[in-house]
Amino acid sequence: MTERLVVIGGDAAGMSAASQARDRRGPGDLRIVAFERGAHASYSACGIPYLVGGEVGDVEDLVSRRPEVFRDELDIDLRLHSEVVEIDLDRRAVAVRDTGGTGAGGGGVARWEPFDQLVVATGAVPNRPDVPGVETPGVYGVQTLDDGTALLEALGEKPERAVVVGGGYIGLEMAEALVRHGLRVSLVDLAEQPMTTLDADMGALVADALRELGVELHLGERLEGFEESGGRVGAVRTENRTLPADLVVLGLGTRPNSALAEAAGIPVGETSGIRTDRRMRTSVEGVWAAGDCVETVHRVSGRPVAIALGTHANKQGRVAGINIGGGYAAFPGVVGTAISKVCAYEVARTGLSTEQALRAGFEPVGVVVESTTRAGYYPGARPMRTKMIADRATGRLLGAQIVGREGSAKRIDVLAVAVWHEMTVEEMTGLDLSYAPPFSPVWDPVLITARKTAQRLEELRERG
Amino acid sequence: MTERLVVIGGDAAGMSAASQARDRRGPGDLRIVAFERGAHASYSACGIPYLVGGEVGDVEDLVSRRPEVFRDELDIDLRLHSEVVEIDLDRRAVAVRDTGGTGAGGGGVARWEPFDQLVVATGAVPNRPDVPGVETPGVYGVQTLDDGTALLEALGEKPERAVVVGGGYIGLEMAEALVRHGLRVSLVDLAEQPMTTLDADMGALVADALRELGVELHLGERLEGFEESGGRVGAVRTENRTLPADLVVLGLGTRPNSALAEAAGIPVGETSGIRTDRRMRTSVEGVWAAGDCVETVHRVSGRPVAIALGTHANKQGRVAGINIGGGYAAFPGVVGTAISKVCAYEVARTGLSTEQALRAGFEPVGVVVESTTRAGYYPGARPMRTKMIADRATGRLLGAQIVGREGSAKRIDVLAVAVWHEMTVEEMTGLDLSYAPPFSPVWDPVLITARKTAQRLEELRERG
Repeated sequence: MTERLVVIGGDAAGMSAASQARDRRGPGDLRIVAFERGAHASYSACGIPYLVGGEVGDVEDLVSRRPEVFRDELDIDLRLHSEVVEIDLDRRAVAVRDTGGTGAGGGGVARWEPFDQLVVATGAVPNRPDVPGVETPGVYGVQTLDDGTALLEALGEKPERAVVVGGGYIGLEMAEALVRHGLRVSLVDLAEQPMTTLDADMGALVADALRELGVELHLGERLEGFEESGGRVGAVRTENRTLPADLVVLGLGTRPNSALAEAAGIPVGETSGIRTDRRMRTSVEGVWAAGDCVETVHRVSGRPVAIALGTHANKQGRVAGINIGGGYAAFPGVVGTAISKVCAYEVARTGLSTEQALRAGFEPVGVVVESTTRAGYYPGARPMRTKMIADRATGRLLGAQIVGREGSAKRIDVLAVAVWHEMTVEEMTGLDLSYAPPFSPVWDPVLITARKTAQRLEELRERG
Repeated sequence: MTERLVVIGGDAAGMSAASQARDRRGPGDLRIVAFERGAHASYSACGIPYLVGGEVGDVEDLVSRRPEVFRDELDIDLRLHSEVVEIDLDRRAVAVRDTGGTGAGGGGVARWEPFDQLVVATGAVPNRPDVPGVETPGVYGVQTLDDGTALLEALGEKPERAVVVGGGYIGLEMAEALVRHGLRVSLVDLAEQPMTTLDADMGALVADALRELGVELHLGERLEGFEESGGRVGAVRTENRTLPADLVVLGLGTRPNSALAEAAGIPVGETSGIRTDRRMRTSVEGVWAAGDCVETVHRVSGRPVAIALGTHANKQGRVAGINIGGGYAAFPGVVGTAISKVCAYEVARTGLSTEQALRAGFEPVGVVVESTTRAGYYPGARPMRTKMIADRATGRLLGAQIVGREGSAKRIDVLAVAVWHEMTVEEMTGLDLSYAPPFSPVWDPVLITARKTAQRLEELRERG
């Protein structure tokens, strides 16, 4: 008998799961229906800041696979504008409502669609501040391609001042995009630094980069509300000031969109992400979950985390799909690697920050080393700072951060693999990393930092 | 009583050892004398092609530490133009001769200098072809800074045609440098491809890059000799043709410069490199060796290898120096990581090539993936090809190679660490590598290649 796989959510995780399952089971064995409430499937939300900034010319460039590819080449029945509003685990069916092309819910009576296997890939919900005026026109989120095009339209009306609320990756990328359009941009965040996943000293470098770019920073400042002026947003009010604004972008991060699953009785964890095992199975037989809506384990802290990132979504979707297809695959957890570009600067991190390490019960020792991306004498050598955070007792690398110019940040991957393998900083000093003058000083920045950190730990040991 | 440490060779390995030993033991406890036969200590030989090519403007830029720094700041008695011509292990002394500033041996009576501890860091000797005319003026090596300045001088006389003999890293870098000077450049190599440490398919990409640059390739062709014309080189003769040449550069690699040690009875291995343990001790009490003159172990093949590279030299010197200083350090061996730039292309490798894997008794399976350095839609995304070589039986990553445009090759370090930890390609598909559109497609090239290689291994298993 043909099994029926229903996928809720047509983005990275959902469509990876569907594609992998199809790869292993033909249409006669597995029917696949995917419901996506929006107008696009399989797009790069991470690309939106570059669409808005103008580096990417066309919204279609962000669509990695067109809907007809799924239908025609993979025999996946992808239905756009179709929102799943309920999961009934007893009936083994989902209720689907036509969003009428608005993507916002809207009319249409729900009809029930049965499933044998179910993949919940409902993504994330952007955090919205609980302050007056948040619904005022001119206050934009950065979540869907429609958000991106709406922002582009707004920019066509030549706004002069923008306020970005939130100093995380998306907030910073959006601040840069708006500066590129010639706007005066202010950034408001309750935290004392941008990118709170970095240590304070490295975050301060990012703050400098933003100021250099011309962004006015209001850090450690509580948002109080949005003021209207002529039917659109006119100002942002914080505890200390009122910032005139023709445009507001919210970049306050996201949380797992797990309400639908939770309402159906599928267990969610303390992060509010859906709980799964390494094979992406929920505790309900035949129900899988993947992507921004799930929680996973941080391999260093051992704690559950929910990190919304396309790369995890793709991997988890692939794992679910292989398992549904009859193969074996497991998602091994994460080490919290992230990277971003802020104008001429590159920023990256992996593992635990000093604060996270303390919370996880380690005794972190941090060392920052200033180095260059190439041999100092080679043209184009750029400054970069690398920080390593090691456990005082064991010397184990707990985390690392990089802030530097072009050619710096992707080196974080080496550190991510070192964290993954629980290397000590002393062991890392022996790593066989590539060297040639156009690519690295003879002591690679990673190696120098490992060496200096190992030295610092030895000094601490001698001191007792 | 003050111990006396003698260091033979004032470059990366020798001076790292001296500096580390000094770091841990004061002048009253350890007297350090370093003998360097040339005119420079602690310089970057790897930078010579860029000096010749013009990217580096001044030969002094390649000197990482000036001699007086060692004397004045580190209390290391560095003696330039001083060649050690004999080691007497019974007398615990070395015979030193003044090279009279020529760097080439020359006059002067040797005097004996006693040691308690000895570091042999005599570097490598460039291979020279055993053919008629190799001593003809106009045939240059690329080993010392003096070679570099001699070549620059020769280029001042506006030669028109150059022949590079040898298609390894240095040969290719020199070919590019000569093209930059407007010369017509031919490259001759007995091998069928440039960079024989790459698989043939990846080597072919490098050959294409060279042709694109305008270099005429004569591969698979035996060198027969050099012809003189008016007191200088006039042509290069191969088994198939005679190539007119105003200038010849030899880039035939190097071998460990271990003759001095061997003559003294210090054991050398099958690679002709001096044998040491992980702490860089030779089998003679109090005698250490480090850098291009030693052999080390390849962590994948388990076989001894001699790889002349500044990064290994520095690390090994550091290890020797820490141990001499009373600390503990060990050099863990290598995985054969290397990187190079050939005009607009970047080339890197780590681990074993297919041929090396076969020789080491593995059953290698290779998969090549074409990808881009950034998200396809992000400006500046460049093509790159990644090859992984995995063991059929275990799925273990044995080696990897990258050929691509700017931003490709330094990713080899991730693969080097994966090889180091004996990861399987399946395990690698789960690695938490950084993702943002300016740095990587959502499936990082390393992850895609791991995935495709894992898939290929699975197909082979199914086929039985």
